[in-house]
Amino acid sequence: MEIVRIEAGPRYSQAVRAGGLVFTIGQVAIGAPGADVATQTADIVARLDRLLEEAGSDKSRLVCATVYLAELHFYEAMNSVWDKWVQTGSTPARTCVQANLLSPDYAVEIAVVAAVR
Amino acid sequence: MEIVRIEAGPRYSQAVRAGGLVFTIGQVAIGAPGADVATQTADIVARLDRLLEEAGSDKSRLVCATVYLAELHFYEAMNSVWDKWVQTGSTPARTCVQANLLSPDYAVEIAVVAAVR
Amino acid sequence: MEIVRIEAGPRYSQAVRAGGLVFTIGQVAIGAPGADVATQTADIVARLDRLLEEAGSDKSRLVCATVYLAELHFYEAMNSVWDKWVQTGSTPARTCVQANLLSPDYAVEIAVVAAVR
Repeated sequence: MEIVRIEAGPRYSQAVRAGGLVFTIGQVAIGAPGADVATQTADIVARLDRLLEEAGSDKSRLVCATVYLAELHFYEAMNSVWDKWVQTGSTPARTCVQANLLSPDYAVEIAVVAAVR
Repeated sequence: MEIVRIEAGPRYSQAVRAGGLVFTIGQVAIGAPGADVATQTADIVARLDRLLEEAGSDKSRLVCATVYLAELHFYEAMNSVWDKWVQTGSTPARTCVQANLLSPDYAVEIAVVAAVR
Repeated sequence: MEIVRIEAGPRYSQAVRAGGLVFTIGQVAIGAPGADVATQTADIVARLDRLLEEAGSDKSRLVCATVYLAELHFYEAMNSVWDKWVQTGSTPARTCVQANLLSPDYAVEIAVVAAVR
């Protein structure tokens, strides 16, 4: 099974493709730290779009997602962006729980698995 | 790689099959909210059985599971049902941590990956 | 798809190989409970090395990892061991969040997915 690593750093890679599946890092809003929840989520899904593209996949091929919310009441604001991002008929199996994230600047963290095109 | 989505909704699918693997949603006891931990766990694994069947798999093909407990002291009550559900010789790699779940009515959340038959 | 289970117990298996991927349990420092964070992390990655070997893989084939920290300020101590363990050019997609673990003796829990050799 061939492994392709996207933006492989010394600590982690932003995404790894193994066989027909792509696994992304738990993505946070590094482009919008401290912003409101919807803005952070938009920053995250834009980066996921880019990573999936680099790995030969896209959001229509999402398989599963794990969403960590710093606060449970961020749920609706996260979903306001999520619901527009995902495509009807192509939605992943999603898990969503509360978790304290590495920085108080981050409200949401999303990791996904997708199938290559 | 073919993708098959089970109960695909506008926000998420209950399970997604990609290649030979099935990924389920983080399942909560939507059939028994607020019930005791064992009852909720039984509700969850019954739904997982149904989803795996729909996806062409079953509990003998479990690969991994992530169990989120709203309270760590729910561990034994969850396991009392889990241990009867899984089959000796077919147990998945399991991760179990505490996490605050989306509703206080839910005590347990379980997501699994299984291989198709 | 063939399934191979490593150290299959009645509740869970330490690792499960399905097709070309290996999924490990969320590993804690059962060899060093209560030890400092770096020592616990070293205990965990040594056990992951052994499990991956048994499953026909190794750390050069890591695909993704989920790291749960009992306390967020354990991040640097965990990384001090992680950074030496992983190989430049072979780093997995990693997710790291805080989570309360099953015993207060455990500071870190790490689950990985790897591709077989």
